[in-house]
Amino acid sequence: MREGTRVTRPVVTFWFEFASTYSYLSTMRVEAVAADRGVDVIWQPFLLGPIFGVQGWTTSPFNIYPAKGRNMWRDMERECARLGLPLVQPDPFPQNTLLAARVAVRAMTTGNGPAFCKAVFEAEFGQGRDVSSPEVLAGALEQAGLSASLLEEAVTPENKQAVRDIGAEAERLGIFGAPRFVTEDGELFWGNDRLEQALDWELTKHEKTF
Amino acid sequence: MREGTRVTRPVVTFWFEFASTYSYLSTMRVEAVAADRGVDVIWQPFLLGPIFGVQGWTTSPFNIYPAKGRNMWRDMERECARLGLPLVQPDPFPQNTLLAARVAVRAMTTGNGPAFCKAVFEAEFGQGRDVSSPEVLAGALEQAGLSASLLEEAVTPENKQAVRDIGAEAERLGIFGAPRFVTEDGELFWGNDRLEQALDWELTKHEKTF
Repeated sequence: MREGTRVTRPVVTFWFEFASTYSYLSTMRVEAVAADRGVDVIWQPFLLGPIFGVQGWTTSPFNIYPAKGRNMWRDMERECARLGLPLVQPDPFPQNTLLAARVAVRAMTTGNGPAFCKAVFEAEFGQGRDVSSPEVLAGALEQAGLSASLLEEAVTPENKQAVRDIGAEAERLGIFGAPRFVTEDGELFWGNDRLEQALDWELTKHEKTF
Repeated sequence: MREGTRVTRPVVTFWFEFASTYSYLSTMRVEAVAADRGVDVIWQPFLLGPIFGVQGWTTSPFNIYPAKGRNMWRDMERECARLGLPLVQPDPFPQNTLLAARVAVRAMTTGNGPAFCKAVFEAEFGQGRDVSSPEVLAGALEQAGLSASLLEEAVTPENKQAVRDIGAEAERLGIFGAPRFVTEDGELFWGNDRLEQALDWELTKHEKTF
C-alpha cells in the first residue's frame, strides 16, 4: 500500500525489463486488458542484469540453458501469432538495455512514458533493432512525442542513482524475472501469463477495501 | 507422428514428473480439459532428475533459486485455490520419485494408469505424504484398483531399462521441465499454463490432416 496516497482506483505496478521477451508481450497488451477492468497501471522499468549477476548469471538464462531458450523462442512465435504481434529476434540477445532503462525512467515523469516504452519494444522485438543505440532510442522518443533531450537527462548522476534505487527496490521485492505485477496489497505475480490474474486480484481486494 | 499407427483421433502426449508441482495441476485437470475437446491423451511419466543432473543441478531449480521457489509456492497456492485442489508442501521437496515413476510405467500398461498417477499426486501434494515410500505407493495402487505386485514388477531389470529409455527419449525431445505436452506433429508446449493451447494445436492440425 502506498502511504500518504488516497487510493481511489485499483492500481497494479507493472515491472518490466526491455531485454525481456515476455515483457514485450505484456507491454503491448497491458493497457487494453487493464482498461477493460478499470485498473490503473504504474509502469516501472527496471534492470534485470544486476539481479541475474547476484545469481552468478552473466547472460539470460535462455542462453545459459539452450533447451529452455529454444522453447522460449518457439513459445514467443506462437504467442505473437496469437496476439497479432510481429517478432524478430534481436542480435545480440539479450540486448544491452542500460540506456533504454535510464531514458524510460525519465520518460515516465512525462505523460508519454508508456508510448516510449512501447516504441522501444516494437523496435527491438518487432523489427529486431539494436536498442542500445542512442539513435534508435531517439527515434522511439520522437515516436512518443518526447524530446531527444531525455537522452542527456538519462545520464545525469541523479537519474543513474534513481535507476539503481529502482533496482534495489526490485531486489527487496524478490523480483527475479520480468514481467512482474505487484498489487497494492503486495501480491506478486510473475510472467505475462499472470497479467489477468494480477489485475483480477487487485480488483477483488480493492472492492473489499473501498 | 507415431509410425505404423492409423491415427483416427487427435492425441497429445502428456509428459509429467511426480516431483513436479505443476505436473500435479495438469494431472488433476487434463482428463476433463481433453475430453471436452475430444483429444486423446497418452500419459508419459518420466524422471527429471537425470536431465537436471546434465545441467549440473542436484536439486530442484526452485530450491537453487529461493526467490523463484517462493514465487512458485505462492503461485501454487493461488492456482490450487482457483482449481479447488488441496495443497500441502511435501517434506522433503522435491520428493525422490524413482520408484513412483517405475511403478507408473508398469501401471500404464493397464487401463488404470491415470488413476494410479492421480492417487500418487494427491498423496504427495494434497496430503504432503512421502511418495518414495512403498507403503504410500501400495495405497495408491489399491486406490486405482491395481495389484500391489506392480511394486515388484517395477524393479525388474527390464522395467528399470524401460524407464531409462523413456528418459533418453525425453532428452532427445529437448524436455527440460514438466509438465510437457507434445502433439502428433511434434510441437512442444511447456507448463500447465499451456495445456489448453497444446490441445487446441493438436485439434487444428488433426482437422487439417483428416
